[in-house]
Amino acid sequence: MLKQDIMKLATKVREEAPLVHNITNYVTVNDCANCILAVGGSPIMADDIEEAKDITAVSKALVLNIGTLNKRTIDSMLSSGKTANQLGIPVIFDPVGAGASAFRNETAKKILEQVKLSIIRGNLSEIAFIAGLETNTKGVDVSKEDEKKDKIQIARKAAREFHCTVAITGKEDVISNGKRTALIRNGHPIMAKVTGTGCMTTAITGAYCGVHTDAFVAAVTGIAAMGIAGELSYEKNQDKGTGSIHIGIIDELSKLNSETIKERIILEEL
Amino acid sequence: MLKQDIMKLATKVREEAPLVHNITNYVTVNDCANCILAVGGSPIMADDIEEAKDITAVSKALVLNIGTLNKRTIDSMLSSGKTANQLGIPVIFDPVGAGASAFRNETAKKILEQVKLSIIRGNLSEIAFIAGLETNTKGVDVSKEDEKKDKIQIARKAAREFHCTVAITGKEDVISNGKRTALIRNGHPIMAKVTGTGCMTTAITGAYCGVHTDAFVAAVTGIAAMGIAGELSYEKNQDKGTGSIHIGIIDELSKLNSETIKERIILEEL
Amino acid sequence: MLKQDIMKLATKVREEAPLVHNITNYVTVNDCANCILAVGGSPIMADDIEEAKDITAVSKALVLNIGTLNKRTIDSMLSSGKTANQLGIPVIFDPVGAGASAFRNETAKKILEQVKLSIIRGNLSEIAFIAGLETNTKGVDVSKEDEKKDKIQIARKAAREFHCTVAITGKEDVISNGKRTALIRNGHPIMAKVTGTGCMTTAITGAYCGVHTDAFVAAVTGIAAMGIAGELSYEKNQDKGTGSIHIGIIDELSKLNSETIKERIILEEL
Repeated sequence: MLKQDIMKLATKVREEAPLVHNITNYVTVNDCANCILAVGGSPIMADDIEEAKDITAVSKALVLNIGTLNKRTIDSMLSSGKTANQLGIPVIFDPVGAGASAFRNETAKKILEQVKLSIIRGNLSEIAFIAGLETNTKGVDVSKEDEKKDKIQIARKAAREFHCTVAITGKEDVISNGKRTALIRNGHPIMAKVTGTGCMTTAITGAYCGVHTDAFVAAVTGIAAMGIAGELSYEKNQDKGTGSIHIGIIDELSKLNSETIKERIILEEL
Repeated sequence: MLKQDIMKLATKVREEAPLVHNITNYVTVNDCANCILAVGGSPIMADDIEEAKDITAVSKALVLNIGTLNKRTIDSMLSSGKTANQLGIPVIFDPVGAGASAFRNETAKKILEQVKLSIIRGNLSEIAFIAGLETNTKGVDVSKEDEKKDKIQIARKAAREFHCTVAITGKEDVISNGKRTALIRNGHPIMAKVTGTGCMTTAITGAYCGVHTDAFVAAVTGIAAMGIAGELSYEKNQDKGTGSIHIGIIDELSKLNSETIKERIILEEL
Repeated sequence: MLKQDIMKLATKVREEAPLVHNITNYVTVNDCANCILAVGGSPIMADDIEEAKDITAVSKALVLNIGTLNKRTIDSMLSSGKTANQLGIPVIFDPVGAGASAFRNETAKKILEQVKLSIIRGNLSEIAFIAGLETNTKGVDVSKEDEKKDKIQIARKAAREFHCTVAITGKEDVISNGKRTALIRNGHPIMAKVTGTGCMTTAITGAYCGVHTDAFVAAVTGIAAMGIAGELSYEKNQDKGTGSIHIGIIDELSKLNSETIKERIILEEL
C-alpha cells in the first residue's frame, strides 16, 4: 500500500543517508541543503563543468533546478544529467519559471530532450508549459473541482510524454507516473510566503529518490513530507510570522518520522 | 499627509503583490526574497544577460544591488535598467560598497549614467561617494547635530543631481527627492549585526515602489517598515541573540500593517 | 596560558571589529557573514578578479573556501592570497571537499603552492588528502583512541609541511602548528545536521586571526567558540529541530564572552 511505502521510505532515507548532488539556484540553496540534511540525506552542491559529472558519479541522486539559471551551469546540468543516466542515478528536475523567458524555455527543452528524468516537479503553469499543454484554469470562474481535474489530466499526460513521474504542487498536489496517480492535501497556503518551498520539496524528493527505485513513491513521499512539515510549522509559528515559519519547516522535517506521516498524511490514490 | 500615504501604501502592496525583479548579491538574496514576500510583494531573481530584460519587462519594479558584483552581471544590470526605463518600470539602486574598489566605483558610475533611477539607497559614505561629495563627519568631534545636517545636505544634493529619491540610512534615516525631505528615527543599532539589513531595506522599497508612482513615498515606507520591524524584533529577541533577531525582522515585516506603522513610526518632514 | 589567551582574544575581536574578506561558496555564505558579525568581526564578500585584491588589501584577514568552486573565482583566490601575503594579512583556507574531484584537488594544490597560509581547517579526510597522508581510520574496527592518535599525527605532519596551523575538526578537534598541539572536546554531533558549520568555523577563525598575530591561538579560539555555541544551541533548541539549532548557533556566538568560554571550554594542550 502506498501509505506504508511512504512510511518505510521516510525511515530508510535516515538509515542510508544518500548523497544528493544539487545544481541549483543561489536564492534557496542553503534551505535545500538544510532540508536534505533534515530528512536524512547528505547534500552536495557543485556546478562547475570541470567537476559536475565527477560529483554526480559518486551521488545517489541528481537534482537540477533552473531557479537562477545562467549560461555557466547549463552545460554542467547536461553533463551531470547524462552521467547520471549512464550510471543509473535518478535525475529530478525542477523547471522553475518555465514559461517566463525564452532562455528558461530553451534550457528546459534541452534538459527534457537530452536527459532521461525520473521526476519532474513544478507548479501547474510550469508543468503545463513544458508539456506544451493548455490549462483551463486561468479564468476567474474556474471551480476547484475543475482545477483538480485539469491538474490530474496534465500530470498524467506529461508523465506519459516524458516517461517519468510528474508532480504538480499547489493547494492540492497531484503526482502521476502515467499509470498510478496520487493526490495529497497537506500543507498550508502560508508556505507560498516563504521563498523556495517548491525548491525544498524538489530537493528532499531527491533524497527519497536516492534510496528507492520507485520514483513515484519517492515523489509522493517528498511532497507529503514538505506538506506535513509546512502545516506543523504553521500551527506552531503562525503567531510569530513567516521568518519563524520558514525555520519551523526545517525543524519539522528534521523530526519527521513514519508515525507523524501516518497520523497526518491526507492521501488519495486514484 | 505623508504618514497617511505610508499607511495606505503598506496595505496596497499586499493587495497588488507586485512582481519585483532583483539582480542582487548571493550573500543576502534569500533574505531579500523573503522580505519582499513578507511585505506583500512577489520576488523574482534572474541575472543572466539572456533573460534579464525579459524578466524585467514583466515586473513592476527592478532592484539593482552590487553587493557581490561580478563581470557577468554588469551587462545584465544595464540591460534590465534600460528596459525598465523604456517601459516606465521604476529602478531602485543599492550601491553596496561604493568607494571600496575601482571596480565598484566604475560600475556604479555606469549605472548612474546609463539608467534613470527612481531611488538610490545606501549609507552615508556610499551616497557621498557616488555623488562626489565630501562628508564632514569623519572626525571624532563631530556632533550628532552636525552629522544630521551633513546627511540632509548630501541627500538633497544627490537627489537633485540624479533627479531621483535618495535615501541615506543609518542611526537616523534621511530621504529626499530634492524638494521633499523626511527623517525617520526608527530601528535599532543591533540591526548592523545582521548582514544585509541594508539590502533588505532596498528590496522592500522595490516592492513599495512597484505599486506607487511616487518614489519618495515608497522609499520612506520601505525604510520605516524595516526600522519598525527591526526594533520590534529587537524587543522580542534581544535575550536570544542576533540569529533570532534576523529571523524576527522577517516575522515582523510579515505582520506589519498600517496600525503598527501609525503607532510606531517616528517621522519628521522638513 | 592558552585558555587565558583564548578568553582575551574573544574580547579583543569585539573591540577591534576586524574586516574579514571572504571568497567563499554560495551555500553557506550568509551564515558565514552572520557568524563573523556575531563574534565581533566585520565581513566582506567579494570574488571578482577585478576587485578581489583591492578588497583584500583593506582587510585584516582573508578566508578562502572552495565549497562551490568555479573557474571564475580560482584566479581571484590566488590573486587575493598573494596580495595578502605581500601585505602580511593572514590567509585562512578551507579545502571543502578536497579529494572529491580532480578539479578541487588541483585547485587546493595551486592554493597550497602559491599562497602562504596561516591556518588550514578541514575534516580528517580533507586534511589527510591535501597533505598526501593516509588515515588509518577508515575501517570499522578503529577505536576512538586510534582515531584520536591518527588525527594528532596528521595535524602535526600537515602543519610542518605547510608551515602553518592546521585544524582538523570532528567529534574531537585537533589543532597543531607543528610545535604546539591542542585538543578541544566541545560541540555536539547534531551540528553535522546543519549545513556549513565547518565553513562557519573557518569564517570566525578568520575574524580571530584578524586581531592576533598567533594563528594557533586564533584557530583554537574559533573552533572552541563554534563548539560551545553548538552545544549551547543544542541544549536550548533540541526539542525544536535543526532549523532552530542552526539559528541558535548564531544566537550563541553573538552572546559568547570570555566567561562562557571559561566555564565551557574542554581544552587540552598536549
